[in-house]
Amino acid sequence: MSEELRIPISASVRHIHLCREDVEALFGAGHQLAPAKALSQPGQFACEETVSVCGPKGRIERVRVLGPEREETQLEISRTDEFKLGVDAPVRASGKLEGTPGIRLEGPHGAVELEQGVIQAARHIHMTPADAKRLGVEDGQMVMVRVGGERGIIYDDVLVRVKKSYALDMHIDTDEANAANLGSDAWGVLIKGPTEVAPDPND
Amino acid sequence: MSEELRIPISASVRHIHLCREDVEALFGAGHQLAPAKALSQPGQFACEETVSVCGPKGRIERVRVLGPEREETQLEISRTDEFKLGVDAPVRASGKLEGTPGIRLEGPHGAVELEQGVIQAARHIHMTPADAKRLGVEDGQMVMVRVGGERGIIYDDVLVRVKKSYALDMHIDTDEANAANLGSDAWGVLIKGPTEVAPDPND
Repeated sequence: MSEELRIPISASVRHIHLCREDVEALFGAGHQLAPAKALSQPGQFACEETVSVCGPKGRIERVRVLGPEREETQLEISRTDEFKLGVDAPVRASGKLEGTPGIRLEGPHGAVELEQGVIQAARHIHMTPADAKRLGVEDGQMVMVRVGGERGIIYDDVLVRVKKSYALDMHIDTDEANAANLGSDAWGVLIKGPTEVAPDPND
Repeated sequence: MSEELRIPISASVRHIHLCREDVEALFGAGHQLAPAKALSQPGQFACEETVSVCGPKGRIERVRVLGPEREETQLEISRTDEFKLGVDAPVRASGKLEGTPGIRLEGPHGAVELEQGVIQAARHIHMTPADAKRLGVEDGQMVMVRVGGERGIIYDDVLVRVKKSYALDMHIDTDEANAANLGSDAWGVLIKGPTEVAPDPND
């Protein structure tokens, strides 16, 4: 079973997606983001550009910009980053930014006072419709994923995201990866809830 | 069931236990550690004293000393701290320091080149023999603990430690707490493995 339900896992280091207006404010009028490295999801790339993020309690330098541009700017950080910056970001699926806090961004050309867009990305698995069929899950379903090792963890509340353009990969943040000592080439086993182990304490 | 098997959880921020010799090297001959705050385990306390920890890649200031003194100096850090310092510390139960890396410590009086003692503390639950009896577990047993919330996690590989002088409390590090967005007053539900959910991928 393990082999069939095996899911590759990647840790997403803090990063930012920018809208056109914010690209221009931070990097100059007409600026085009420079792709530096392709990411696991087809068409997505890490850029040469970075920004500084400034919260009420601290700042973080060289936060990587990911491309291509999006409709709305979105900063994805870990809980550890939140403590450093002094901001309390909610867990959200990508693009669900209503009611999220803002923050100050600084680039080489200028600064942006973001009104909203700071989130902890909800754990999720990208997959194609063929993957979903094979794994027996569907878009929007919440599942668990178990990783082994000396510090094994079962991640609960993992969102399944299905799209033809996706490649099979689970995305978690650096706190979530570090809690289980995951390195590169990490993987886990899909668990289609509900589980018999124990009820969710908050249910 | 949840109510009966409820375990309080505390996040242990990076800290250090010092032997007599290292107390004197760092803080001066005859120095006595000054208790600042009692901890959850009876007789254990956070001290006024802090040290700087210096690794090959970076340093961390103001690492809290915990008392009382121990036979051997032991630095407990998170994976996030390891990346900052540039050190690769193994997961260990407290006191199992053979083969662990060393690091440089700096105090107001002097420095210590630690030869070993840097660990990631293995997740564990302190409890009394009465707690163990009630919960149906024994000293040295490995269990799971499930926490709820929006970022629920089941921690695997949790070591049960039973002693008359202990108070019921599970200790995890800041990465492990942040991965589930745990705050103060966090708690989980004990799961006595083996689990039916899915086999450990590494078994």
